[in-house]
Amino acid sequence: MLPAHVTLVEVGPRDGLQNEVQPVATADKIELVRLLEHAGLGHIEVTSFVSPKWVPQMADASAVLAGVRAPGVRDARVRHSALVPNLKGLETALAGPRASWPDEIVVFTAASESFCQRNTHCSIDESLERFAPVVARARAEGLGVRGSISCALGCPYEGDVPPEAVARVAAGLKALGADHCGVSDTIGVGTARRVQAAMEAALRHFDVDAVSGHFHDTCGQALVNVYACLQMGVHTFDASVAGLGGCPYARGATGNVATEEVLYLLRGLGIDTGVDLDRLLDAASFISARLGRTVPSRAGRALLAAR
Amino acid sequence: MLPAHVTLVEVGPRDGLQNEVQPVATADKIELVRLLEHAGLGHIEVTSFVSPKWVPQMADASAVLAGVRAPGVRDARVRHSALVPNLKGLETALAGPRASWPDEIVVFTAASESFCQRNTHCSIDESLERFAPVVARARAEGLGVRGSISCALGCPYEGDVPPEAVARVAAGLKALGADHCGVSDTIGVGTARRVQAAMEAALRHFDVDAVSGHFHDTCGQALVNVYACLQMGVHTFDASVAGLGGCPYARGATGNVATEEVLYLLRGLGIDTGVDLDRLLDAASFISARLGRTVPSRAGRALLAAR
Repeated sequence: MLPAHVTLVEVGPRDGLQNEVQPVATADKIELVRLLEHAGLGHIEVTSFVSPKWVPQMADASAVLAGVRAPGVRDARVRHSALVPNLKGLETALAGPRASWPDEIVVFTAASESFCQRNTHCSIDESLERFAPVVARARAEGLGVRGSISCALGCPYEGDVPPEAVARVAAGLKALGADHCGVSDTIGVGTARRVQAAMEAALRHFDVDAVSGHFHDTCGQALVNVYACLQMGVHTFDASVAGLGGCPYARGATGNVATEEVLYLLRGLGIDTGVDLDRLLDAASFISARLGRTVPSRAGRALLAAR
Repeated sequence: MLPAHVTLVEVGPRDGLQNEVQPVATADKIELVRLLEHAGLGHIEVTSFVSPKWVPQMADASAVLAGVRAPGVRDARVRHSALVPNLKGLETALAGPRASWPDEIVVFTAASESFCQRNTHCSIDESLERFAPVVARARAEGLGVRGSISCALGCPYEGDVPPEAVARVAAGLKALGADHCGVSDTIGVGTARRVQAAMEAALRHFDVDAVSGHFHDTCGQALVNVYACLQMGVHTFDASVAGLGGCPYARGATGNVATEEVLYLLRGLGIDTGVDLDRLLDAASFISARLGRTVPSRAGRALLAAR
């Protein structure tokens, strides 16, 4: 039994643009979010409050958030998330007026010890400890907290990641007070059955309404993985317009699953999302043009050619 | 319950190269087939005996077949198919010594009347009538006959194609004496549930051992469609190394589902195919180099970059 409704969390402005070499102007990021909202996307990961030294692409995090939440621009029905790696990031996110704060923060650690060490220079347990005051503060301010588990299927250093590792991190996120657990195949190596096992591991600690799948299309498996999760009743998925983004840790990697390809599947299955495919293609065209390329996703290319 | 074993029918040399604008030398086609056989593919659609006036890419059909079946080259365990559109094509296919004949011919018509008219200038019923002597002769000579239903999901002129239309053509192919029925999403517009309905329509007239899925990746759905059919017990799929081919009838269309992406899925599901992924990538690299491009499939790109 497939779910009747699916929530698509659009991560292109954050996970997509964060991994694009080509810089994108702040105004263009704001316009991208506006177009995505116009298409009906009700949950958008807008930016990331990471160190501008390490991730210059996100140096304008405050300006982007202020822009998309400005009076007359903001659609109050849309939930805006921002990735926050530490307390300093959260302080920056909350430095401006309350209207500019994100509705929700995203914290992430990994299911792979090696990846966590190389990516954040601490153990998984230490990363969770580090998040404790971040989550506490965010919750005290009334913000949602989305936890995300990177490398839930595979790790560039360790290879296959077992479901037990995912369950352990999910338990840690739950204990911290996260209200959502995202299962991320960061390097896009998972196949359907293993993805279901990873998702089952997260479901030991979170309700099905509180889990989501985040799949990269590195090996062309992302949409099958979405389908396999739908068959488990999972009804929240991250996706990235025009398949924006890649993974700096995996050479040759394709980016996130393209929102338009997930939407095409869901529409065909009769699953409601509230998203208009044609308007979504407008957003895909817009950002692809700004990045100086044609829309790279297969569905995007085919559907735009048929216009 | 997924099948324990899947047969991959490699159609790159035919359906792939037929739709490539870039001409490929006969020797390279023969080498491609050799590499595919070396990878463990046991069923290969080698060429097409179509009019060289309409399809110059396949003008060397007899030479290719003679080459891959030459003494000292041929692997007797491998089944070679050739597409044959009419009696003239069959006569050409059988003009040489018996050792050079294909093991099997492929005849195809469409589930869409408009597509059939535009593509073959006759009605679906007329196309089936036209095949009657072709199938009879092939069977008399002891060759296998694979029937294929184009546009089983959608048609560039008619839009969605209903399962009833597929069932009707499947019945016609069965009556003709075809021993296999392929369900082809020629323009790559089908999604999982509709593909299952089309497959169920074919299964009204053919056993599950005698049906196969042929999916184009135009809208990024091909691998999900394979997975949805696997869940029905279907265990034979066409695929094209490096995702070779496109569709001349659909602008902007991506080609066939890439063999390496199907194989990556099946391997992850623990389904046996007898095909070695690494050697398959050698074949993908070879033909892509000959076509002057890098391997375009996502799995091919990622796995080759990781070498």
